[in-house]
Amino acid sequence: MRKIAMLGAGFIGQFYANALHGQRSCDRISVVYSRTEKTAMDFAEKFGVPHWTTSMEDAINHPETEIVVISLPNNLHEEAVLACAKAGKGVLCTKPLGRTADEAKRMLDAVEQAGVFHGYLEDLCYTPKFIKANQSVRQGSLGSILWVRSREAHNGPHSDWFWDKEKSGGGAILDLGCHCIEIARHFIGKNVRPVEVMCWAATQVKPIDAEDHAVGLVKYENGAIGQFEVSWNFRGGMDLRDEVMGTEGTIWINNFLRTGFEMFSGVQEEGYVAEKAETNTGWLFPVGDEVHELGYTHMFTDMLNAFDKGTAPLEDFYDGYIVNEIMDAALKSVKSRQWEPVNLRIWRGGDGGEVKSALKDFDNDYYLIKEEKLPNGNVGVILKSKDTGEVIRKSL
Amino acid sequence: MRKIAMLGAGFIGQFYANALHGQRSCDRISVVYSRTEKTAMDFAEKFGVPHWTTSMEDAINHPETEIVVISLPNNLHEEAVLACAKAGKGVLCTKPLGRTADEAKRMLDAVEQAGVFHGYLEDLCYTPKFIKANQSVRQGSLGSILWVRSREAHNGPHSDWFWDKEKSGGGAILDLGCHCIEIARHFIGKNVRPVEVMCWAATQVKPIDAEDHAVGLVKYENGAIGQFEVSWNFRGGMDLRDEVMGTEGTIWINNFLRTGFEMFSGVQEEGYVAEKAETNTGWLFPVGDEVHELGYTHMFTDMLNAFDKGTAPLEDFYDGYIVNEIMDAALKSVKSRQWEPVNLRIWRGGDGGEVKSALKDFDNDYYLIKEEKLPNGNVGVILKSKDTGEVIRKSL
Amino acid sequence: MRKIAMLGAGFIGQFYANALHGQRSCDRISVVYSRTEKTAMDFAEKFGVPHWTTSMEDAINHPETEIVVISLPNNLHEEAVLACAKAGKGVLCTKPLGRTADEAKRMLDAVEQAGVFHGYLEDLCYTPKFIKANQSVRQGSLGSILWVRSREAHNGPHSDWFWDKEKSGGGAILDLGCHCIEIARHFIGKNVRPVEVMCWAATQVKPIDAEDHAVGLVKYENGAIGQFEVSWNFRGGMDLRDEVMGTEGTIWINNFLRTGFEMFSGVQEEGYVAEKAETNTGWLFPVGDEVHELGYTHMFTDMLNAFDKGTAPLEDFYDGYIVNEIMDAALKSVKSRQWEPVNLRIWRGGDGGEVKSALKDFDNDYYLIKEEKLPNGNVGVILKSKDTGEVIRKSL
Amino acid sequence: MRKIAMLGAGFIGQFYANALHGQRSCDRISVVYSRTEKTAMDFAEKFGVPHWTTSMEDAINHPETEIVVISLPNNLHEEAVLACAKAGKGVLCTKPLGRTADEAKRMLDAVEQAGVFHGYLEDLCYTPKFIKANQSVRQGSLGSILWVRSREAHNGPHSDWFWDKEKSGGGAILDLGCHCIEIARHFIGKNVRPVEVMCWAATQVKPIDAEDHAVGLVKYENGAIGQFEVSWNFRGGMDLRDEVMGTEGTIWINNFLRTGFEMFSGVQEEGYVAEKAETNTGWLFPVGDEVHELGYTHMFTDMLNAFDKGTAPLEDFYDGYIVNEIMDAALKSVKSRQWEPVNLRIWRGGDGGEVKSALKDFDNDYYLIKEEKLPNGNVGVILKSKDTGEVIRKSL
Repeated sequence: MRKIAMLGAGFIGQFYANALHGQRSCDRISVVYSRTEKTAMDFAEKFGVPHWTTSMEDAINHPETEIVVISLPNNLHEEAVLACAKAGKGVLCTKPLGRTADEAKRMLDAVEQAGVFHGYLEDLCYTPKFIKANQSVRQGSLGSILWVRSREAHNGPHSDWFWDKEKSGGGAILDLGCHCIEIARHFIGKNVRPVEVMCWAATQVKPIDAEDHAVGLVKYENGAIGQFEVSWNFRGGMDLRDEVMGTEGTIWINNFLRTGFEMFSGVQEEGYVAEKAETNTGWLFPVGDEVHELGYTHMFTDMLNAFDKGTAPLEDFYDGYIVNEIMDAALKSVKSRQWEPVNLRIWRGGDGGEVKSALKDFDNDYYLIKEEKLPNGNVGVILKSKDTGEVIRKSL
Repeated sequence: MRKIAMLGAGFIGQFYANALHGQRSCDRISVVYSRTEKTAMDFAEKFGVPHWTTSMEDAINHPETEIVVISLPNNLHEEAVLACAKAGKGVLCTKPLGRTADEAKRMLDAVEQAGVFHGYLEDLCYTPKFIKANQSVRQGSLGSILWVRSREAHNGPHSDWFWDKEKSGGGAILDLGCHCIEIARHFIGKNVRPVEVMCWAATQVKPIDAEDHAVGLVKYENGAIGQFEVSWNFRGGMDLRDEVMGTEGTIWINNFLRTGFEMFSGVQEEGYVAEKAETNTGWLFPVGDEVHELGYTHMFTDMLNAFDKGTAPLEDFYDGYIVNEIMDAALKSVKSRQWEPVNLRIWRGGDGGEVKSALKDFDNDYYLIKEEKLPNGNVGVILKSKDTGEVIRKSL
Repeated sequence: MRKIAMLGAGFIGQFYANALHGQRSCDRISVVYSRTEKTAMDFAEKFGVPHWTTSMEDAINHPETEIVVISLPNNLHEEAVLACAKAGKGVLCTKPLGRTADEAKRMLDAVEQAGVFHGYLEDLCYTPKFIKANQSVRQGSLGSILWVRSREAHNGPHSDWFWDKEKSGGGAILDLGCHCIEIARHFIGKNVRPVEVMCWAATQVKPIDAEDHAVGLVKYENGAIGQFEVSWNFRGGMDLRDEVMGTEGTIWINNFLRTGFEMFSGVQEEGYVAEKAETNTGWLFPVGDEVHELGYTHMFTDMLNAFDKGTAPLEDFYDGYIVNEIMDAALKSVKSRQWEPVNLRIWRGGDGGEVKSALKDFDNDYYLIKEEKLPNGNVGVILKSKDTGEVIRKSL
Repeated sequence: MRKIAMLGAGFIGQFYANALHGQRSCDRISVVYSRTEKTAMDFAEKFGVPHWTTSMEDAINHPETEIVVISLPNNLHEEAVLACAKAGKGVLCTKPLGRTADEAKRMLDAVEQAGVFHGYLEDLCYTPKFIKANQSVRQGSLGSILWVRSREAHNGPHSDWFWDKEKSGGGAILDLGCHCIEIARHFIGKNVRPVEVMCWAATQVKPIDAEDHAVGLVKYENGAIGQFEVSWNFRGGMDLRDEVMGTEGTIWINNFLRTGFEMFSGVQEEGYVAEKAETNTGWLFPVGDEVHELGYTHMFTDMLNAFDKGTAPLEDFYDGYIVNEIMDAALKSVKSRQWEPVNLRIWRGGDGGEVKSALKDFDNDYYLIKEEKLPNGNVGVILKSKDTGEVIRKSL
């Protein structure tokens, strides 16, 4: 049973509170901080939190506080993390860790130097589907991973500060790309070094300075590609999908709009259908339990179990830092219009490595390129001579 | 925080334990009972349960036991419930409540006379999708409910006693139909009286006495139909789907095989893919978190929250009893080959009621039958004269 | 190349004309008949038909007419068929063949006595998906067929005469059930005798005398069940799905609302989205080529190829007659509230037959009931003693 | 009715023949050419073609030949096209038009100078889903198109020459990218100039020189992006999907693996399941009528109707040339690792143009960034001051 200080009482803080207090949870938020008194009080009342404050320091240093959850706008992460480190309190920080890799690195350095527990709240690496999919990938069901596409697109974030580049630090890449990059990094292998990034981004629709749409390719040392696609211009709800391509298999995950719950309604629905839903009549695709399906439940379980045991969680500030470095390279590539290296000032994974060559022997003389059943029922093979390189077709 | 006695340590008991101890749960199983010592010990070790016993009475009367969960074969439910009532302990019983309505009624009477808390563990009325769908139905998004199809089909149950009619009390209807009947009853309205049942059942494939396949229609007093389809002969995994048809809308729920997680693997997967999965290569459709998606998590949350507050849970023994009466009528109909009345000896819902007529005025002279856009782009209406009953077509 | 007389110029006649003249077809409608001059003229102009008439006899006996297509309201089928038989012209009749089995039998007798070519225009037994699925079933990919569900539901037919019981002969069963019954009969095997029917039907919503919703079970001699579900009360578009359950496999077909084409539009779409679509904003599920996907293209190819070769098409008046007998039994069952026999006055299929028993030997002493992988990774079997019938569980 | 010379009798030639002779087609292949006598003879017998030859010139100049279809390996397209131009015969050429833009330009010049009819056989711009989707896009249902993803991935082509870079001219980009590029170009608008390309490609798995996997972004003059994803390394069948994102809507098309036909089979299926299917047990996803769903039927209808009427088909050699120029730029980008311009030596579309700005007034002082319903039921808006650029949140 853990007592938690919640910094920030907005949209994401409320989602977190629902997860932390959800089901038969033994954990409780014991103090909430918000800049504005009313927001803090309302949050405290809604979630049954005994203490509230408008002083971040007071919340962190509250005698009941065992661990701190940061749900603040991006521009306040560093300040909050440094305060936790100073106070010697464990800290869980929402995504992205920093607005830049520099910021993220300072946070990582601070918690490591202070020796406090740190977790990076990358919920989409904790969705039940992701967890099971990643287990299958890790045990080899897909062979070597060649390519991952991770996509998050919707019609724009809820909170005003997201739209202000000074506070948020950027646009759709910083807001959504951080998820997609880390999802791909998991599937490809967190031990494999990301080496370079090519990225396109543009402000196509929204009246903002930052990009509202971007597509990027992250190349890993073994040749695998992590592709991220992010947008604030998508119409139709929240598009949250991943695709994984391995030498031996494929995974397709849909986390939101097509998960086995379909409703047609001719009646104006009162209330909330699903996160980022655009309509409430016609065909709708709600999600049963959003807090769970978006990974918040499993995320806090892992974080707090790790905190209890004194081990590292699946995702910590080091991971947040790596993601920030990749995003920095992506943003640089948008401007330079070419591949940009990922400059990892800290790297704790492996080096070298390649996707294993898949040359398969057909017989002593030929490699097998492929085997296939044709419409006429015959099975044919395409072979390549080991000697001459000539390609031939043969019926079996 | 609650301390629980678990009666039964088999397949379903383990699913329940995963739910009860899942995530950051504050509840704990404090004693487990199994007929066989080794099973009890293994369970205790696996789930960190401090006490185990081969005496059902000892488990129930254990000083730490606050509430009892029954995960026993169907033929042992009554004995266990009576013992709980006698001991004055709250009791949660797995589905179906009884092998017959007589048995269920005796259990209901016993817990009510003893004044103990009772919950009916109908997990499929607690899946996240069901909960949200039922909210939409209750707030009128589908208008009046006309028909519900609920289907559960797979390749047969895990435990040996299910296949022994004496122990299980029956076949696919008792095993699976109880789920489907209660799902439909929820959507149609638990206050609406089920009046009669028509059912087909057969033993098509399995070497057993009981039916391995059945389809039944339950007619409610307002004219709505609850259709259940159950089978132990289905190939391809676990087919767990619901469809709801209302005057104003439609809901389709798929709880298992198509929930947004699709995997192709050319490699023999080690270990478990999903409940009742038949293959582990080719295209597979795992579920992220089965315990959650099958409703166990939300079910125990509701049960134990209600127990804490002294209120009734969503599903209690009264509901279990109603379901048993409907199943008795269904089995009678299989033999009599005609509609059979549901003889409710206890009924606490409403009486009367009809699906509201949907006559819509087009103008003073005509009812509107339908309005439609045709391939040529025209909009046409079909009207019925209020006076003569004549049906005409008109272009708008 | 064939010259066709089209009787009827309404909704279905236009669908047929689109199919007959579709793509690079060599066939042409050379004369069209409608009761009303303007309808005939408009049709002739729209489809480039050289001749039109308001005399059914003139159309049939037109010197260019090689074969006649009947797209008339149900109450005019018999008259038209008898005229074709008298004229010695081949005839293709839309579904259902008759309003009753008596009517259908007279039509069958007439064409057979006259020796003219006859085809029953059951388009849903010609959808590309059905054709391929039925091939798989026929070659044994699903083992023995145990159960078929065929469902057609939408918000009611286009034409006014459908809503007039005198002209249409009935309600949703006659309009839609004829499709579903024949689909199931194909999958189960056209040689297997349908023996009895149990059916529920009601008028739940529409201001009409006939049923607007029905569910029926057709039992075949081998124990297989063909389940039909039909409604004019469905909301959300056209629900056109089939499910087939065999001892060795499963088929799920969705012909309309979920076929791989999904569109979200925030803009009011001009024109037609899809047959029976209810909205034109929000999420929409159009079908690429309706004429093709609904089977019209392959149907006329089979019909006219058979006519060219002098062979029988896949579906002829005999099939239409069988379907009418099954519907008569269904309507009788609605009233009698019990299973009713199908009284086939003509039967050209086989007799006897049973779904093959699926008893599988595990070893000399035991039958195998099932084998399964459990969450703990173990493989278990459920066995039944050949001697005592006792059921046991065993780990492998 | 048209008489066709077919050049090439391999896999694609047979697909074309099935389309050309399919259903009740009035067209016929009257002569077939293949380099090898047996292949030509077998083709002639299989498709009822009266003449066969091993001389390309003889086939083209055959007195019955009205129009020529080229189904030859890529390295033979130019020779065949030049021969058709010389002979004054209309010509339809399979995709890609050339191995390079130079080759394609020479072919375009040749047919235009000769004044012969020319069609580019880009079948995937003729799938029934594409045609209907493109109609919706053209009439504005999606607003301005921002981004198109088109993906084709499978386990490698059927024919041996594809794997030989000399004959095929390249790898997955040339084989599959040509489809994806043209699909995106259609949705974005064929009148909008493609300006530059960024592309990643690698040989990850197959023992070949050319790339077996590539992802590219094509930027159009109005800022829209056409993204192509192609691979010969995909496992699980044929992945053929498109996604279109517009300011007002979204389209998702799945042409193959999820089109509403799902089959589980425990029995080894004899024969062919679907193009590029990898298994024939477990869950399978066949397509009803491949020739139709892959666009061949509508493609030849458009081509031959245009030929009859003397108009241009939807896709002609000009389109093929544009696609080749884009692929040349893509291949250049793979090497240069930066965006490369598309050097269109011929351009017949428009110039300039931008995705229209979507600034929406909220009131006199603010732009509306977004409006959204929150989980608490409130509707909130994000606004941007026209004056200061400040972003604020407001509840309605």
